[in-house]
Amino acid sequence: MTPPRLLECLGTTEELTEVFSSAAVLAAMLAFERALARAQARLELIPQSAADAIERAAAPEAFDAAAIAREARQSASLAIPLVHALSARVRAIDACAAPYVHLGATSQDVTDSAMMLLLRRAQHVLAADHARLETSLRALSDAHAHTVMPARTLLQPALPTTFGYKAAAWYAPLHRGWRRLSDAFGEALLLQFGGVAGTLAAYGKQGPVLARALGEELDLPAGGAPWHTQRDRLAAVVAHCGIYTGALGKMARDVALLMQAEVGEAAEPGGGSSALPGKRNPSGCAIVLAAATRMPGLVAAYLAGMVQEHERAAGGWQAEWQTLPDAVQTTGSALAAAAAAIAGLTVFPDRMRANLGGREPAVGAAEEFRKRLLED
Amino acid sequence: MTPPRLLECLGTTEELTEVFSSAAVLAAMLAFERALARAQARLELIPQSAADAIERAAAPEAFDAAAIAREARQSASLAIPLVHALSARVRAIDACAAPYVHLGATSQDVTDSAMMLLLRRAQHVLAADHARLETSLRALSDAHAHTVMPARTLLQPALPTTFGYKAAAWYAPLHRGWRRLSDAFGEALLLQFGGVAGTLAAYGKQGPVLARALGEELDLPAGGAPWHTQRDRLAAVVAHCGIYTGALGKMARDVALLMQAEVGEAAEPGGGSSALPGKRNPSGCAIVLAAATRMPGLVAAYLAGMVQEHERAAGGWQAEWQTLPDAVQTTGSALAAAAAAIAGLTVFPDRMRANLGGREPAVGAAEEFRKRLLED
Amino acid sequence: MTPPRLLECLGTTEELTEVFSSAAVLAAMLAFERALARAQARLELIPQSAADAIERAAAPEAFDAAAIAREARQSASLAIPLVHALSARVRAIDACAAPYVHLGATSQDVTDSAMMLLLRRAQHVLAADHARLETSLRALSDAHAHTVMPARTLLQPALPTTFGYKAAAWYAPLHRGWRRLSDAFGEALLLQFGGVAGTLAAYGKQGPVLARALGEELDLPAGGAPWHTQRDRLAAVVAHCGIYTGALGKMARDVALLMQAEVGEAAEPGGGSSALPGKRNPSGCAIVLAAATRMPGLVAAYLAGMVQEHERAAGGWQAEWQTLPDAVQTTGSALAAAAAAIAGLTVFPDRMRANLGGREPAVGAAEEFRKRLLED
Amino acid sequence: MTPPRLLECLGTTEELTEVFSSAAVLAAMLAFERALARAQARLELIPQSAADAIERAAAPEAFDAAAIAREARQSASLAIPLVHALSARVRAIDACAAPYVHLGATSQDVTDSAMMLLLRRAQHVLAADHARLETSLRALSDAHAHTVMPARTLLQPALPTTFGYKAAAWYAPLHRGWRRLSDAFGEALLLQFGGVAGTLAAYGKQGPVLARALGEELDLPAGGAPWHTQRDRLAAVVAHCGIYTGALGKMARDVALLMQAEVGEAAEPGGGSSALPGKRNPSGCAIVLAAATRMPGLVAAYLAGMVQEHERAAGGWQAEWQTLPDAVQTTGSALAAAAAAIAGLTVFPDRMRANLGGREPAVGAAEEFRKRLLED
Repeated sequence: MTPPRLLECLGTTEELTEVFSSAAVLAAMLAFERALARAQARLELIPQSAADAIERAAAPEAFDAAAIAREARQSASLAIPLVHALSARVRAIDACAAPYVHLGATSQDVTDSAMMLLLRRAQHVLAADHARLETSLRALSDAHAHTVMPARTLLQPALPTTFGYKAAAWYAPLHRGWRRLSDAFGEALLLQFGGVAGTLAAYGKQGPVLARALGEELDLPAGGAPWHTQRDRLAAVVAHCGIYTGALGKMARDVALLMQAEVGEAAEPGGGSSALPGKRNPSGCAIVLAAATRMPGLVAAYLAGMVQEHERAAGGWQAEWQTLPDAVQTTGSALAAAAAAIAGLTVFPDRMRANLGGREPAVGAAEEFRKRLLED
Repeated sequence: MTPPRLLECLGTTEELTEVFSSAAVLAAMLAFERALARAQARLELIPQSAADAIERAAAPEAFDAAAIAREARQSASLAIPLVHALSARVRAIDACAAPYVHLGATSQDVTDSAMMLLLRRAQHVLAADHARLETSLRALSDAHAHTVMPARTLLQPALPTTFGYKAAAWYAPLHRGWRRLSDAFGEALLLQFGGVAGTLAAYGKQGPVLARALGEELDLPAGGAPWHTQRDRLAAVVAHCGIYTGALGKMARDVALLMQAEVGEAAEPGGGSSALPGKRNPSGCAIVLAAATRMPGLVAAYLAGMVQEHERAAGGWQAEWQTLPDAVQTTGSALAAAAAAIAGLTVFPDRMRANLGGREPAVGAAEEFRKRLLED
Repeated sequence: MTPPRLLECLGTTEELTEVFSSAAVLAAMLAFERALARAQARLELIPQSAADAIERAAAPEAFDAAAIAREARQSASLAIPLVHALSARVRAIDACAAPYVHLGATSQDVTDSAMMLLLRRAQHVLAADHARLETSLRALSDAHAHTVMPARTLLQPALPTTFGYKAAAWYAPLHRGWRRLSDAFGEALLLQFGGVAGTLAAYGKQGPVLARALGEELDLPAGGAPWHTQRDRLAAVVAHCGIYTGALGKMARDVALLMQAEVGEAAEPGGGSSALPGKRNPSGCAIVLAAATRMPGLVAAYLAGMVQEHERAAGGWQAEWQTLPDAVQTTGSALAAAAAAIAGLTVFPDRMRANLGGREPAVGAAEEFRKRLLED
Repeated sequence: MTPPRLLECLGTTEELTEVFSSAAVLAAMLAFERALARAQARLELIPQSAADAIERAAAPEAFDAAAIAREARQSASLAIPLVHALSARVRAIDACAAPYVHLGATSQDVTDSAMMLLLRRAQHVLAADHARLETSLRALSDAHAHTVMPARTLLQPALPTTFGYKAAAWYAPLHRGWRRLSDAFGEALLLQFGGVAGTLAAYGKQGPVLARALGEELDLPAGGAPWHTQRDRLAAVVAHCGIYTGALGKMARDVALLMQAEVGEAAEPGGGSSALPGKRNPSGCAIVLAAATRMPGLVAAYLAGMVQEHERAAGGWQAEWQTLPDAVQTTGSALAAAAAAIAGLTVFPDRMRANLGGREPAVGAAEEFRKRLLED
């Protein structure tokens, strides 16, 4: 297992590093090639013996990721060196089987579909942390339904509110944001299979049948058309990662501000300082805010790449390979840090009340609005 | 009516310039203040005579937008100078009514709600152009269901495809994109009404009732909670503007490439050149591509502003006033240009076939996929 | 004079709105056309009488900006409708002179050169505010060379520092940033003159001589080559606007944080609140921070547009017309707000010392570092 | 040596992956800690025996990067777990020496200074490729000084130009861009050393002397003040990476367009296709254009992080650890691909002339402008 690099460790998690590791990419691409051969054999488009040879040859650990990475720069394609290496291994097992490797498929089929397999795993990782965060936020809001504190506008104390209402207002956009992101994943996680021109020309009229069979093998929906030229569904995934991370960032900024020594209304478990051991820092918030700083640029990078030429772009598509994993990992890192910070948040109701400065804590409809936000 | 500025004329339309003009902003903010007074009078929270005075005083043409713009920089608030000017006018009509102006409301209530009124109008403008574009694209795709042409990957000719399939692959992400953008508008266009702290404290327990009444006056849903600290719904509007514009940009790039003299497979009505009168340029495509160049940065700007402090941000919120209209106008400008370009597109099937270079035009499942894309 | 629109009033100033107004654009474009005619007449490339007719016809107030804006969308060009309108006016004065309008020039020549004239004016507006800000910051730093206060890391109090050192650390990046931005303006403000292909083909070997003459007329350097395909110098202007605004944003965030009631170490003149009249808000900081929120996206938009096709892009170039003025105005708005906020900043040394909590204010080399920063 | 990950292989090079690898980060951070101890011993601030123990303990291969990455998330700091691990190793060698580890320094000192050491190595890697690219471009331009071809505006053929002039117009912004980027590196590569508050308080008046000694040890200039709160110099590095990559992107787009089968005026060595073995693709251009797609977002991310709170930010600073290496590697990847593509570019003068369609190739001042661009 590859750990996160030191310079990336605040921008991903160990689980997500693994999801997008070279080993996982190889495994997913080879899973596609194996599934393609199986589906083709099932439909009697290639001999079963060829599918068997491809199955045996496509063992991820037999491939040299470093060599593939190097060769990929020659063709701006991960698929070309991988298919080349796979064909060589198949040939060694059964020379007759080699021409059936990757038959009728194109680079984008294997690369995009493999990415969908990785994104599906990533979605599960995020879902678990989101569920944890939701639970903590609801409990926090309920526990402090009547804990009064100052609302603050432009960083100045305004009228009173309750901490429970404030926490509910952190919760609601995250709840909605996760639903949107989930929906976007659900819409986007599709088989990509179109051949060179998106017509599956190599299979004549049987293309759509094979696509469905391949989709079944990989457990990816395949009922529509190839989407190689249509990146809107992945754009929605990235954009909703950005919006979700923005909502996390708002919460983290609030917590970091409440945690200021002069305010002292809340504290996350935090971490220390290399120079001042006693100091408790908003470390989790810093990780979230670093993510919220980086995400808008990542979303912009994805959107900029949507302008893809014809049936496969020179540039826009290749840019996605980095932007997609980066956006998802950045979101996941922020989410993991936020979930831990909120689960361990200490609230100081006395300090909150004291900061009201003796003002009458008339909080209007705070409780009604709080409940509505949690019902959303 | 204020026309677009010369340097903005490719980034908006006359209709959308009007939607976000100073006159329209004044009208929308004053509509909020009048509606608030009416709703309060209806609930007997203020005297009917005060509501009448406010109604009479709040005539948009009586306000000096330039002066308000100037004063707004003192307080980083449009509402403060507007409310000040309105109060002065009310006082002149009925001195007793002046204290009831903007009663219990806050800057963000009027500014955000007014923005929702403007966005609603903008949505209608966009919807009409989108409908036009969809119709043109479906017709284009149907007309060329069997027009063969080269698919192109990395800008090089690959296997054959059909122009009808290509047009359907332009259509599908725009169709989905508009549905997403419509949904995002639908989710976001809500009354904002929370008072200083989001608690409607000035009204005790009656706040939510008043909110509902005010929402009815403005025809804006008001059943939930104030959302001053929750910008995710507007972020989704902006992000889906970005994705939609990205899909327009992909189509425009394709058209501009097909229109190259050396390719010659299609031509938009285009415009001329200041130096070479005979030349036909992809002018509509250029407008769309200019929008697609600018949108990712606008989306990034909106997302960056989501990290808003506490109950009203110092910076993030104020940034929205420019980013929201800019994103919507940029989208609308691209959409108008695309709708015109596609409605007037000339296709050259002979050239398409010639560019296949005598290759056998086996287009596999192109027609099946085309139909699926139009059904989506 | 056109005032800023209400929704833009925090993102520009009255002076800068004027600099980029339609009237100013018309004036600058017509100045180019007049200068071109004068220079051509001087070199005897066109009759003096034609130049005279063009001179007379090219009175900005005679042109209909709204009509030009509308027509510009047909050709994705401001120059085409302008030249058309100018030719008609010249024809009315002297039919023989009409063919000499815009002779041998292209859309990009007049549009880019006009933009340079506007940017030069904008640079002067910014320079005045920057000088004011520098003076205030130096004075503030000197006055508080020995005013001790807590340094803060991750928003938590750390060891003591001095406010004078802090202010010097605001000053230094602004001082450097302005120097870089000035240099970038100096490098970029060049005549654009290349004709359709950048070869000045209409003038044979005399092109460079005419370019120099035209540059003299407009007081724009013209000694190099046309730069229609080379946007790096303008990109540097936009990027340095972004860096400068980022440095302003850091200062504004610090001031807004120091201004929190619970911290109370400084206060800008600020503005009030529409609901709580007594409240003093970091309004100037909010304007600066709104600009710092929007600028990274604007810089990204400019950079995205650098990928311009061949000798004139379809999209990337046209996008600049909006991004350049927006970036410069956003910077200028932030600068004006920052200059006012710093000039009026109240500092509370007692509160600073009290916030040290009785810690021994050992500030190490603060004073030496402060001096070095001001010397930079 | 860690190779690039598969999903990153188009966005970095092997050399640059190594420069920012965990091993290199560990080595650079430990180099800082060793140099600090040596400098302190030299100035008799700590015992020589302590410095010796630190020297021996700080062997990079003895540290567990994965464990440090994991712990770093607790404190949002790479320095805390590293210093902790180093102290433990020193203690095992010489218990009395342990308190002298990292004495008077802070997280940001070691992290920022280590980053400067890495950036210096990266600059050398880029410089070599840039020199190669410049040489190729000058040769290409000279060789084709008189090769006529169509200029193209809005993707349509316009008047003739020469390929030599076109190549010179690719060269000039890269030449200027590299000079700007070099200058930005030169300005930014400074020692960071300020202690917790930027005052070097732990050393009383001796701080600046120690800073200079430490700078000598690391060969990093240390004559100014700490810059922990001033990120403008690094922002300039990132921005000039963005501008340089934008200029590469413009060239790559042109080459990819010239390489279209229907245009056929140039071809890069390119790579094949997984489905169509005979096809020659603009693979190098695709890598450059992918970089140009991603860079604007990376620049935006850096600029967004400039708004850093007080003496160390919660979020903005931590975001830099990923953005800086990503921006530099993206630039380096594009540069390596461009250098290879241009060095191997085939030009087809006959096709260029044919595409002029018999027009008289009057190229005006093309040759004079070409020479001026190369002189720049």
